[in-house]
Amino acid sequence: MPPDPGYSDPLPAAADLRKLGLIAGGGELPARVIAACREAGRPLFVLALEGFTNPDCLAEVDHAWIRLGAAGEGFRHLHAHNVQDIVMVGPVRRPSLADLRPDWRATRLFAKVGLKALGDDGLLRAVIAEVEQEGFRVIGVDQILGGHVARRGTLGSVQPDDQALADLAHGAAVARALGQLDVGQGVVVQQGIVLAAEAVEGTDAMLSRCAGLRREGPGGVLVKMCKPQQDRRADLPTVGPVTVMRAAEAGLRGIGVQAGAAVLVDVAEIRRQADALGLFVIGLTEEGTP
Amino acid sequence: MPPDPGYSDPLPAAADLRKLGLIAGGGELPARVIAACREAGRPLFVLALEGFTNPDCLAEVDHAWIRLGAAGEGFRHLHAHNVQDIVMVGPVRRPSLADLRPDWRATRLFAKVGLKALGDDGLLRAVIAEVEQEGFRVIGVDQILGGHVARRGTLGSVQPDDQALADLAHGAAVARALGQLDVGQGVVVQQGIVLAAEAVEGTDAMLSRCAGLRREGPGGVLVKMCKPQQDRRADLPTVGPVTVMRAAEAGLRGIGVQAGAAVLVDVAEIRRQADALGLFVIGLTEEGTP
Repeated sequence: MPPDPGYSDPLPAAADLRKLGLIAGGGELPARVIAACREAGRPLFVLALEGFTNPDCLAEVDHAWIRLGAAGEGFRHLHAHNVQDIVMVGPVRRPSLADLRPDWRATRLFAKVGLKALGDDGLLRAVIAEVEQEGFRVIGVDQILGGHVARRGTLGSVQPDDQALADLAHGAAVARALGQLDVGQGVVVQQGIVLAAEAVEGTDAMLSRCAGLRREGPGGVLVKMCKPQQDRRADLPTVGPVTVMRAAEAGLRGIGVQAGAAVLVDVAEIRRQADALGLFVIGLTEEGTP
Repeated sequence: MPPDPGYSDPLPAAADLRKLGLIAGGGELPARVIAACREAGRPLFVLALEGFTNPDCLAEVDHAWIRLGAAGEGFRHLHAHNVQDIVMVGPVRRPSLADLRPDWRATRLFAKVGLKALGDDGLLRAVIAEVEQEGFRVIGVDQILGGHVARRGTLGSVQPDDQALADLAHGAAVARALGQLDVGQGVVVQQGIVLAAEAVEGTDAMLSRCAGLRREGPGGVLVKMCKPQQDRRADLPTVGPVTVMRAAEAGLRGIGVQAGAAVLVDVAEIRRQADALGLFVIGLTEEGTP
């Protein structure tokens, strides 16, 4: 078993000072990116998505709100603010076309991708290509929050036992297969049985139904893996202190994430929670091994 | 689109009169099998599983209750009652080993299969092999309820439109992939997005979370497919009138099942419900086409 990888939440060594455009979805990650830019003195403009971005994180930040379907307006904002790099973080639940009210630019994008069997993943790839065509450089959140990308090994003092290691490996295989189908990134496995598979409900909702599904005996594990075919500059699986709490409430014994392809939001607090609640948090290979 | 396959709920033409042993799980199917045997005058003995079989269906039926882990006792009952054929119907949620308290016979069976990554499907295959070694013939529920096995074509008057057909095909592909992973048999797809994937929670629980996950616009579809590798003598996907009601409550537009590999419990009532609620119910090829 590799030792604790000794995260230290550092900023990337040479903080890039090119102006960053943050396209902000939901969850805790946008606030983390904003804080990291502030600490590094990196110029920042935030494109906040109505219904997704948490407004609290935008205080004293240069930003504009747009509807998800207003692609043309979004590009105008990004150009007007002389943004150079773009990072997209935080979950965005794809609405129906009716809700989306796509403008001309968004409609053209959808027409390119084709709509009938469009998963989140296909859409994200198309959006990235479109953003790059506009002359922006799309970067991954790991380039901003380098110290938060999961590494191999356990974080904190709790180690998985043999049954948990078997469940982690099985969970990793199933999570990657679900990802390949563009279903989701997360899965809960207990004693070889898949208790729950994540689709659009999200990890927290999946965990909340597991308390009622678990069997007696050694508890299960949550595994979140990167979709094999996804562009790693968008939608990396994310685990935060809240995930650890929900996992404990669901009777799980630990959490496995893909090293190098998952973001740990607030490593120090995750470690503290995991130790306090007696859970392990482990970075795994693509194959689900320690 | 093939026409209404014109189910007529017939009993199989030549009702077999070999004594049947019914190993009864939960749900509505055991009662259906009991009724079919009664109508056909087929001798029957029911092995009822504590915590799974609905006691109401056992009135005036020769039966014995056993714990799920009491395999040796179960075989003694089946032999003592001179059972010749065995059918296993109705869902059985695999308990933990601690709850199972396996007897010597069940322990030997588990030891054969290996426990670490044992899914429901592997376990069922092992149980079937064990039952056959005892000299019983294991038959599929379709041999008892022939008139209830899904056929290609729509049941009732509502037809899927192009978006629904695309969702059915995508759902069939995802459901079969989930089945291959031994995760589950059911999936809900709306406008190309997998809203929910079924694991151990069951179809009804999956449907009940879909109302809150659906997008505006044309509703989704429920697809239930047979696991590609499963022994079709056990655990066929099942749809009943309650499934149609739950699907309507979840805002779905219809249900697709694999023709020849799914059981429709009470075809006449399913057709009535589907027409009354404006849903389609369609039997699909393995590829998810009509």
